[in-house]
Amino acid sequence: MTAVRRADARRNYERLLAAAAEVFGERGAGAPLDEIARRAGIGNATMYRHFPTRSDLLIAVYADEVTALCARGAALLDAADPGAALFEWLGAFVAHVAGKRELAHAIGPDAGPPRSELFRGWHASMQETAGALVERARQAGAVRADVAAADLLALANGIALTAADDGQAQRLLALARAGVRER
Amino acid sequence: MTAVRRADARRNYERLLAAAAEVFGERGAGAPLDEIARRAGIGNATMYRHFPTRSDLLIAVYADEVTALCARGAALLDAADPGAALFEWLGAFVAHVAGKRELAHAIGPDAGPPRSELFRGWHASMQETAGALVERARQAGAVRADVAAADLLALANGIALTAADDGQAQRLLALARAGVRER
Repeated sequence: MTAVRRADARRNYERLLAAAAEVFGERGAGAPLDEIARRAGIGNATMYRHFPTRSDLLIAVYADEVTALCARGAALLDAADPGAALFEWLGAFVAHVAGKRELAHAIGPDAGPPRSELFRGWHASMQETAGALVERARQAGAVRADVAAADLLALANGIALTAADDGQAQRLLALARAGVRER
Repeated sequence: MTAVRRADARRNYERLLAAAAEVFGERGAGAPLDEIARRAGIGNATMYRHFPTRSDLLIAVYADEVTALCARGAALLDAADPGAALFEWLGAFVAHVAGKRELAHAIGPDAGPPRSELFRGWHASMQETAGALVERARQAGAVRADVAAADLLALANGIALTAADDGQAQRLLALARAGVRER
């Protein structure tokens, strides 16, 4: 493949991914795939070359969001206020989980390998990101020494699953933030 | 019906309910109904007279646990430490939700009336119990004035849905307790 064709393929892939994130977001994990190709401005045949099945598209969209979330966490490690940075990231995590519940379900976290492997990998990336942010917040005195990153991530997950709306999610995160402070 | 037969019927009902709670708890909402009658020491025909369908048994078990939980909450309104009382009750609520998840699913909270009515009633009882405990804790200065009972109940629900084990549930509740305190 020439460099030009490689660049074309890469661009098509990115456009399909962006269109899929939009269309799945609007119409759910069962959205018509034709609509994704149409919105990306790419033929169905090309789409199926990149993503042979719906599941391939769903996994790519989900993986892309996890990657973005971890990148945002890494960037927040340079933020001025480590406590605020940790809770900004947890807020983004809550939005991710709340928004991608149906997608996660459609991919099937309880399925056998290799899907369970994928989920394990994503889970590990999230834990690592949360761990680094918690550690920095701890050094700054914004989080008590006995608070585990895994516990905070579980709590954020619970908030995402249960909050009736974004306002309630924000209040519950604020409550968690008050709960982890040194006193 | 004579008073003696009414007392017999009541006793059979109570024994079936206790056996059903045990058997569903051990073997899930799909447990064989014969096993429930056997453990209660009551014939199948009598069981079906009291509970014509599996769903009737599931609903009775669930309703009984909600009633017990609300009674425990009412008793805790007399406890010496209002903050401890509130979080003891939230701990019992978390155990209830975590243990009855499959049952709740089997009954079907999203079904049409009259089941959605049942769930609405249970939800209202829980909110009322939580509200009274929070109000008392607030008056004692154990809970800040801006913390809503509905938010605490949602958080406890999230903890029940997400905690990997009882230890994590306890730690997350302790975190919530620290988060609602006056400072």
